[in-house]
Amino acid sequence: MNEKIDIHSLDDLSKAEVEELIEVSEKYRPLSKSDILKGKAIILLFLSPSLRTRVSMERAAQQLGADVVTLQSGASLWQFEVDEGIVMNGAAAEHMKEASRVLSRYGHLIAVRAFPNRESWEDDAQDKVHNGFMKWASVPVLNLESSLYHPCQSLADLITMKRALGSKKPGKVVMTWCNHPKALPVAVPTSFALAASQMGWDLTITHPEHYDLPAEIIERCQKHAAANNQKLTITSNREDAFADAQFVYAKSWGRLDCYGDTERELADRKARGLEKWIVDESIMASTDNAWFMHCLPVRRGVIVSDGVIDSPQSLVFEQAENRLHGQKALLLKQFQKLGND
Amino acid sequence: MNEKIDIHSLDDLSKAEVEELIEVSEKYRPLSKSDILKGKAIILLFLSPSLRTRVSMERAAQQLGADVVTLQSGASLWQFEVDEGIVMNGAAAEHMKEASRVLSRYGHLIAVRAFPNRESWEDDAQDKVHNGFMKWASVPVLNLESSLYHPCQSLADLITMKRALGSKKPGKVVMTWCNHPKALPVAVPTSFALAASQMGWDLTITHPEHYDLPAEIIERCQKHAAANNQKLTITSNREDAFADAQFVYAKSWGRLDCYGDTERELADRKARGLEKWIVDESIMASTDNAWFMHCLPVRRGVIVSDGVIDSPQSLVFEQAENRLHGQKALLLKQFQKLGND
Amino acid sequence: MNEKIDIHSLDDLSKAEVEELIEVSEKYRPLSKSDILKGKAIILLFLSPSLRTRVSMERAAQQLGADVVTLQSGASLWQFEVDEGIVMNGAAAEHMKEASRVLSRYGHLIAVRAFPNRESWEDDAQDKVHNGFMKWASVPVLNLESSLYHPCQSLADLITMKRALGSKKPGKVVMTWCNHPKALPVAVPTSFALAASQMGWDLTITHPEHYDLPAEIIERCQKHAAANNQKLTITSNREDAFADAQFVYAKSWGRLDCYGDTERELADRKARGLEKWIVDESIMASTDNAWFMHCLPVRRGVIVSDGVIDSPQSLVFEQAENRLHGQKALLLKQFQKLGND
Repeated sequence: MNEKIDIHSLDDLSKAEVEELIEVSEKYRPLSKSDILKGKAIILLFLSPSLRTRVSMERAAQQLGADVVTLQSGASLWQFEVDEGIVMNGAAAEHMKEASRVLSRYGHLIAVRAFPNRESWEDDAQDKVHNGFMKWASVPVLNLESSLYHPCQSLADLITMKRALGSKKPGKVVMTWCNHPKALPVAVPTSFALAASQMGWDLTITHPEHYDLPAEIIERCQKHAAANNQKLTITSNREDAFADAQFVYAKSWGRLDCYGDTERELADRKARGLEKWIVDESIMASTDNAWFMHCLPVRRGVIVSDGVIDSPQSLVFEQAENRLHGQKALLLKQFQKLGND
Repeated sequence: MNEKIDIHSLDDLSKAEVEELIEVSEKYRPLSKSDILKGKAIILLFLSPSLRTRVSMERAAQQLGADVVTLQSGASLWQFEVDEGIVMNGAAAEHMKEASRVLSRYGHLIAVRAFPNRESWEDDAQDKVHNGFMKWASVPVLNLESSLYHPCQSLADLITMKRALGSKKPGKVVMTWCNHPKALPVAVPTSFALAASQMGWDLTITHPEHYDLPAEIIERCQKHAAANNQKLTITSNREDAFADAQFVYAKSWGRLDCYGDTERELADRKARGLEKWIVDESIMASTDNAWFMHCLPVRRGVIVSDGVIDSPQSLVFEQAENRLHGQKALLLKQFQKLGND
Repeated sequence: MNEKIDIHSLDDLSKAEVEELIEVSEKYRPLSKSDILKGKAIILLFLSPSLRTRVSMERAAQQLGADVVTLQSGASLWQFEVDEGIVMNGAAAEHMKEASRVLSRYGHLIAVRAFPNRESWEDDAQDKVHNGFMKWASVPVLNLESSLYHPCQSLADLITMKRALGSKKPGKVVMTWCNHPKALPVAVPTSFALAASQMGWDLTITHPEHYDLPAEIIERCQKHAAANNQKLTITSNREDAFADAQFVYAKSWGRLDCYGDTERELADRKARGLEKWIVDESIMASTDNAWFMHCLPVRRGVIVSDGVIDSPQSLVFEQAENRLHGQKALLLKQFQKLGND
């Protein structure tokens, strides 16, 4: 028997495996209904809100012929305990140890979304819910976005870039921090940085000072880049970053050194005039007619101007659609239905 | 390629098309499971509560062999922005422009319910959520109840009346305002008035003074009536209205000129003794042994007496069941699976 | 035509029928997908939270080929009125009389969960929601846990005990009250007591003084036990109860004579030192290497020690899995798909 394949971060897989997923996603793109996973059941557990992920996961399961059961947090679910060895006399009615094992008896794969609590980065950085499910569930676990990673989004991003490029030569990819009325999680930017560097793209990350992504993840990105004889550039000089870019990936995230003190962070953004970190026609003019990317949902007028997101160079709907096709490939991988598994 | 068929109000369709839907609903009534829409996916988006609509829509999709994904508002969904050209630095995390286009990539039809906010009639009367989805989605959009219309209910009502009548001669149809502890939306009464007048029924609307339905909709009803050489009567004289009625359709709705000030409206109802606007055995005695209709949910003892709703003349469960059969016909229409499409 | 088969308590069925359900659950255990209930629709109505019941019911329906529609209470559902003959001018927008009849038009079986309100035992003991659905729905009704009963859990418990036992001789079964930070419903202990006594197990119930289960249910248990030439022992002497036990079933429940005054009850538990009512290695040492059972969710460190629940003698995941298989048997029974129906 093969071991179960959990997917927490896309770089849990090798570069060759990710390339295979991209190919597989193209093969199954036209599929509307099949029996490939007939008799298999996928359990989706959303402990955080979702639109794209929820719908694209249910559709991926349906197109592959799997049954799906979706659980959404709120009044309808017990609260889970994640720490071991404690006396459970508080709010949590069920230990994740039980929940993950019970769900393993009912379904063949568990996909989990759990956003960070944003009280302590040290705590959130442990991704306890996801690590608990991977440890205790006897079936494969798929990450639908944790504090650290969003592998489904990154795979969709890679598929989208490859399709946009076609036979063109790959150029400079810029991931730019953007302003936002909230302090957002880092899962999307860390995952995009990891995926782009693992796949050998020429990546530049630009953000204002103090908005550094987690050091251990940047280190992993640098290792990926080195393995591809590629460089990873990080700069707070926005103008330099955008110059001659082929792809601009926009995303906001919160400061790790202000974690849990959003008020202070937002006041500081205002004081420093960081609302200028919007992707508009003016900054896009310095690129090589770059494609615009964002994972959605997006704040129009804050992250991106209407002109840029509504332009023909905008790939946001391609990214969203490729969630579906990428996730079909991920499910087939985890169910060991790909050729070389 | 044919253009997509959105259904916002039932009278977006011609009288002949509505008659065809009624016939089609009878043809597919016995169907419990089929492959007609196999491989198609229907996305249901409930921004407001639902029992009948939710279950009957999921069942309609299942019986036709379509896949279905249901999204319900609450903690599980982002809040949508509906206005264009604004800076999104408030509560709304996603613009409907994105949501409608993204969902169009995942499914083949989007069905939306969004009740009015009941703060401003001018604003609600624009049905922004539904108009936005119809404008931006690239797939057909079905209205599961907006501020203005409830076409699924009206089609079920027409099916029910036709079946009740059988070979009998059509007579007088009365739609009567009823009392209620809340100020309710007008979508059901406007839609019933439009549907009954479009189909050529002899319609009388009775309500207390100041409870006028939207003028532009009454005007459309009058045009429909005229096209059928039929008259539309509106009166605050309840006794006249009920005399010799063949069908009594009960429904409460709020005053448009008290919009946003429910407290004042309810106090005024009390002062004017409007709780007598209940359909009970005494007022039904003046009808021609009329059938009783209501869209449900219904307040027993407020809108209708137990005796009337529990009588053999009550059609409320037929109306509810015909939601299912009518909606199968609507879906087939929108998927262009009917003969003449 | 056969009458509809409602299941409110497992002992609505005869001992022979329950034994048949246990056999049928084994027959359908390996089943992952079938067409047995193709074209049938099961409506799940959760007026209370759920993890196991929700997932295992959806999976049971999927494995049998039935369609399923799940409704969860919260912002997405109207509030139901359960009393008859009243004027509905309060919070409840829909009478259960309508809801149950409408859902009967859309599906072929209605399964309902509604926890007690815990304000008045007299009121809760009437199980109004479930009795209303059974009375008014024209299709079979399955109880997914009411104030009084949890038949799906009891059937799973019986299946689990039979499988654990194999060819061994049945011994002493102990159901023990446990401490808990809340005052919990009695549905699981009453149902386990009824099921174990109906099936002829040698049952001992142990709980602190004042934690008596409902007298009329204990009376029924005694009648079941007598019919099996078996005795039912009830004692507050924990040590005596555990001695030589073969199965230990742990469960907390609230005092019926403190109903609605949880604060008083919890203070009294503390004053009496009832936190010692935990199943740990020390008390288990006096048993005959007993199997440990609990319905989950369970409070580790309060109801049971980590050592006991994580031991090889723990059957909690078997119980959870057997929910699925037992419920397939229950559905087939209610759809009259078993041999002798």
